[in-house]
Amino acid sequence: MGLVVQKYGGSSVADAESVKRVAKRIVETKQAGNDVVVVVSAMGDTTDDLIDLAKEVSPIPPARELDMLLTAGERISMAVLAMAIANLGHEARSFTGSQAGVITDAEHGKARIIDVTPGRISTALADGAIAIVAGFQGVSQSTKDITTLGRGGSDTTAVALAAALNAEVCEIYTDVDGVFSADPRIVPAARRLPNISYEEMLEMAASGAKVLHLRCVEYARRFGLPIHVRSSFSHREGTWVVNREGNDMEDPIIAGVAHDRSEAKVTVVGVPDKPGQAAAIFSTVAGAGINIDMIVQNVSGASTGRTDISFTAPRSDGAKAVQALETIKDQIGFEALRYDDQIGKISLVGAGMRSHPGVSAKLFACLAEAGVNIEMISTSEIRISVVVREDDVNTAVAAAHTAFDLDAADGEAVVYGGTGR
Amino acid sequence: MGLVVQKYGGSSVADAESVKRVAKRIVETKQAGNDVVVVVSAMGDTTDDLIDLAKEVSPIPPARELDMLLTAGERISMAVLAMAIANLGHEARSFTGSQAGVITDAEHGKARIIDVTPGRISTALADGAIAIVAGFQGVSQSTKDITTLGRGGSDTTAVALAAALNAEVCEIYTDVDGVFSADPRIVPAARRLPNISYEEMLEMAASGAKVLHLRCVEYARRFGLPIHVRSSFSHREGTWVVNREGNDMEDPIIAGVAHDRSEAKVTVVGVPDKPGQAAAIFSTVAGAGINIDMIVQNVSGASTGRTDISFTAPRSDGAKAVQALETIKDQIGFEALRYDDQIGKISLVGAGMRSHPGVSAKLFACLAEAGVNIEMISTSEIRISVVVREDDVNTAVAAAHTAFDLDAADGEAVVYGGTGR
Repeated sequence: MGLVVQKYGGSSVADAESVKRVAKRIVETKQAGNDVVVVVSAMGDTTDDLIDLAKEVSPIPPARELDMLLTAGERISMAVLAMAIANLGHEARSFTGSQAGVITDAEHGKARIIDVTPGRISTALADGAIAIVAGFQGVSQSTKDITTLGRGGSDTTAVALAAALNAEVCEIYTDVDGVFSADPRIVPAARRLPNISYEEMLEMAASGAKVLHLRCVEYARRFGLPIHVRSSFSHREGTWVVNREGNDMEDPIIAGVAHDRSEAKVTVVGVPDKPGQAAAIFSTVAGAGINIDMIVQNVSGASTGRTDISFTAPRSDGAKAVQALETIKDQIGFEALRYDDQIGKISLVGAGMRSHPGVSAKLFACLAEAGVNIEMISTSEIRISVVVREDDVNTAVAAAHTAFDLDAADGEAVVYGGTGR
Repeated sequence: MGLVVQKYGGSSVADAESVKRVAKRIVETKQAGNDVVVVVSAMGDTTDDLIDLAKEVSPIPPARELDMLLTAGERISMAVLAMAIANLGHEARSFTGSQAGVITDAEHGKARIIDVTPGRISTALADGAIAIVAGFQGVSQSTKDITTLGRGGSDTTAVALAAALNAEVCEIYTDVDGVFSADPRIVPAARRLPNISYEEMLEMAASGAKVLHLRCVEYARRFGLPIHVRSSFSHREGTWVVNREGNDMEDPIIAGVAHDRSEAKVTVVGVPDKPGQAAAIFSTVAGAGINIDMIVQNVSGASTGRTDISFTAPRSDGAKAVQALETIKDQIGFEALRYDDQIGKISLVGAGMRSHPGVSAKLFACLAEAGVNIEMISTSEIRISVVVREDDVNTAVAAAHTAFDLDAADGEAVVYGGTGR
């Protein structure tokens, strides 16, 4: 057998009982003859509780100290998990991100991994021990300060360690059975995907599928590392995220339908139609630290010499975007700002799109038939996204899922374990 | 001004409000022109909560992992304290024991400091920042694993750092106003001692005074580092623990009266009076890992050829001691074991004893007058300890305190802030 890296999220180690269950699973993997490295997140709500504590003493805690504080969370979970494994008669050694050699830049709160030097992990494995590593954290190469990797950080830790240790697979344990063709809460006929390509998974993640983070998928793709997304509550196979060379004719054209309700739309109304205006608008928004997703510029009204520019961005940044744009209203000379947070986005993702023309047309037709109005459109080589009213999201997802023959056949078991996270 | 090391215990940083209060105090010290290094314990009951969590997954958690777990406690308090200081407009940087250069042996749970290399602390101070250091923890020189220092560990961290940084003073903040001539809960007329010598403080600590741990006083004495024990709830002067050369004639003969209710007495009855028996008994007890305090051997009864040997040890080890001795009953041939946990010890401590004969006689007389029976006696150069019935402890302490003129004069303010810890 080989080396398996397993990652367990906070919901898999929410309390002592869950920790014991996960410990049992880890020991089974070890007893099957594998070397095992486990990456673990903080238990349950620990991170939120620590953030609340920080807020009690400081409205804007310094980022270095917030990282120091939050990394206590995984320190607790990894030590407790190591104890639970020891209690089953196997040696386990826990390591902080720093001890595991997760070297990052110095961007506290969203550090990027720049090197992984897992010498102590290799030694632990050579000694026959199971290595437990704190997810989400590392140490800055330049300042030697403790850093956190930000959103999806533990998945990234797991993939980075798996790549550095040349693992056979990185198993990401979650509370669902894998990646689905759509959110089963919206589409009961959604199917678990037995496998999906890195590219498709990237587009799904970017389009709102929350089971894996963009960043960890990017990392795995770069190293060609297989990810196995599966449930910590069952022993069923999950979804393999792998390199798929070429298109198998048997593969479905569309892998899945993702949706996203976390964005809002900002419309800059009556922008004078002259060069440099769009640049001024988007450099202002970017300067405020806001990530823009889709952009649509209306055809300029010939009679008015003015145009409307709309874009979508995270709702949590909506107020900041409007505020930033207000400051350049006079400079640009636009007429008004409109803010709309009642939108939703649905995205069709599939590598088969490359070789199958007409996917867009079919999507638009099925949405029209379902009475769903399309407000914005954006495409990549293997994705089509449309913005619709938030109230229409469920209808749109279900209609597209059916139109592209993704619905499970009658009697095909759809297993769904949890919250869609 | 110079460099001040301050140590705040768990009760001084029990919650967010306490942390803010302590932060204010630290900033005042900084603003007075000092460089400030702060050593902090885990907040309130954090350590106990973590131990409970460990027990939930493993009855006997591996010591390495328990240390990893418990050190999360100071990590939280130091980061939160640094945030609270930042919120007052001063830069603070927190450091783990490992980052602060606290190098220990590999004895998890009771590691000893073997070196302190506080390079990062010096850098922080040179940058004008306040340095916050996690107490109670270090890193093993041989294994690079995280260790904890055991009981009184944070005090020891503070003194060790103060010595390594050549600080002017190590301020130990607690919830009482300093070291008292007796426990004010027992003796309302007890006085705060403005100063006490290392030797006296060592004897007081060994005799049950809980305000400072033996280990940190030993460390301070070795480096001649002044300790200032004071309350974090007031700005009053506390007690200075210092080198006192020679005896000032004005100094009282006796510094204080300590008491201890944590011990039990074991009597080995009818030990055959021949060489080697005491050695066998005490090597057995020591082999069980039990620290013995006082030992008394009765004069052998000439007619029986047998003698009784009594000793005191922590009550928490009582059962273990009896168990260990039972195993050698036949080998030694003693008649019976008696176990008595209803005892108490009172100790008179004072460097003046050296030059003032008659202290013992005066103590015994005053106890007799108070109707207190003495069961065991032990002395050092500057201490006399007697074991009495536990019910007689308060009476004995008060009687000795009065007899040696330690009671505060009428109208002399006795300030006592807390629980006698």
